[in-house]
Amino acid sequence: MGNKLIECVPNYSEGRDLEKIEKIVECFRAKKGVRLLDYQTDPNHNRLVVTVIGEPEPLRDAVVASFGRAVELIDMTKHEGQHPRMGAVDVVPFIPCRNATLEEADALAKEVAKTVGEQYGIPCFLYESSATAPHRANLASIRKGQFEGMAEKMQDTEKWAPDFGPAAPHPTAGVSAVGARMPLVAYNVNLGTDNLEIANQIARRVRNINGGYHYIKAIGVMLEDRNLAQVSMNLTDYTKTAVYRAFEAVKMEAKRYGVPVLESEIVGLLPMQALVDCAEYYLQVAGFDPSQIMENRLLEEE
Amino acid sequence: MGNKLIECVPNYSEGRDLEKIEKIVECFRAKKGVRLLDYQTDPNHNRLVVTVIGEPEPLRDAVVASFGRAVELIDMTKHEGQHPRMGAVDVVPFIPCRNATLEEADALAKEVAKTVGEQYGIPCFLYESSATAPHRANLASIRKGQFEGMAEKMQDTEKWAPDFGPAAPHPTAGVSAVGARMPLVAYNVNLGTDNLEIANQIARRVRNINGGYHYIKAIGVMLEDRNLAQVSMNLTDYTKTAVYRAFEAVKMEAKRYGVPVLESEIVGLLPMQALVDCAEYYLQVAGFDPSQIMENRLLEEE
Repeated sequence: MGNKLIECVPNYSEGRDLEKIEKIVECFRAKKGVRLLDYQTDPNHNRLVVTVIGEPEPLRDAVVASFGRAVELIDMTKHEGQHPRMGAVDVVPFIPCRNATLEEADALAKEVAKTVGEQYGIPCFLYESSATAPHRANLASIRKGQFEGMAEKMQDTEKWAPDFGPAAPHPTAGVSAVGARMPLVAYNVNLGTDNLEIANQIARRVRNINGGYHYIKAIGVMLEDRNLAQVSMNLTDYTKTAVYRAFEAVKMEAKRYGVPVLESEIVGLLPMQALVDCAEYYLQVAGFDPSQIMENRLLEEE
Repeated sequence: MGNKLIECVPNYSEGRDLEKIEKIVECFRAKKGVRLLDYQTDPNHNRLVVTVIGEPEPLRDAVVASFGRAVELIDMTKHEGQHPRMGAVDVVPFIPCRNATLEEADALAKEVAKTVGEQYGIPCFLYESSATAPHRANLASIRKGQFEGMAEKMQDTEKWAPDFGPAAPHPTAGVSAVGARMPLVAYNVNLGTDNLEIANQIARRVRNINGGYHYIKAIGVMLEDRNLAQVSMNLTDYTKTAVYRAFEAVKMEAKRYGVPVLESEIVGLLPMQALVDCAEYYLQVAGFDPSQIMENRLLEEE
């Protein structure tokens, strides 16, 4: 079996003061059962993005502790930056990683939101898969109005009462969005053409919103330096719309334009299984079990 | 970077007495830096096969300790079983696993063979990649004559002087083969035919010995229960002859007979990278870095 691992990518509204940044990141360092994978700051955005993986309980405790730090250190009434934001801890997605389900990530998100609401008086909105109403699933909808407009927005209690915590924003820490989602695979396919319109046409045909695959979001993009058009995709659930299906769908649509597929690219992190699924498909592998992969054995609990 | 991990699959000549088996396996349990992945016993073969992974030094110490246990517990003058054998510890392959090279596995094999020769008086033959002469690379050649014939065989000191340890077999523990090899991927392709001769013809064309790929060994096999012919392969270095090349080679050769490829199967363990290489090939992925796979981050040292 192995231990359950959930990923969390909390975003904090501090991307300039290195001392404060370090104090927040410290909540995830050298904690048993929690592994800090990465953190990135952007002074223009004035924002810190942490990537951390852990077992549910230690991860919950570390994330809650980081809320405490952020409330102490960040004053949203003085915050400025290019990235839209509504709270000291702006958004906290929980993502099932290994041996964990979306339901387990959802349960963790709700626990954290409840604790943070009670302990620190920060109103929390459940979003993505954890959302309690369709209009609250999308982060941009929740965040609209940002920190400065949140007090007024929340007066519409029918639409914007928080799921946990007080009915009005925390005076200096604002509000937070917390929720579960599937891991996202950022996947691009480069076409042998400089015609952006062809990439746009293909994007429209493969993406969910226009009748394509359920878990594909796609747009056409011009790679100016290479003079190539690209179909840029986000695969929002690789367990249901696999990477190879996105690739084959783009190839199939490109055929009508006589445009070849030059290559594809994977941006950022992805789970091993997303690639293993592709190898299994193309090699026509039958009866394979993930425990046959040595690394899966190594990652199991002793 | 991450810590260096080497796999070891020592074979012991005891597959019946559970108490003795447990005492040998104990050498690999709950040792820091060493991870017992699997062990299998076969009473007919009267043999124990342990699969263990570890960092070089702790792995070396555990393997050496297991030699000590085996010398205490196993008396080859009384051993009987269907599997050919020449020693209490019959054969000990070291396999580079993560962040380790074949050269590092080879160095470890030589250290273990030297220590065991000196400490326990067991003559050790270096085999596979560690062999000191071509006629000593193959395990079957070294083992020919088995335990009972080894004293006589070793009188031919020009051919069969051991690499380490005394010039004659240990009276109760015999001799051992120790060496480094690449991980082996057992990979079969099932054909849409009941004609074994076609599988044999394809096997001949894809395997090294008849002019095929360097790191493919292959035979035709009949799956009696399914009435299907199979090309059964051992890929002896997937980093040089990748799994997808073996698969595509079989497909290509099968075409001349108008025989379809039904499916393939992977037998036993394989390293993640062997499948990732296939996904990269078929998806035409450019510029991918293994550190983009989340599990690789998790397996790195903190």
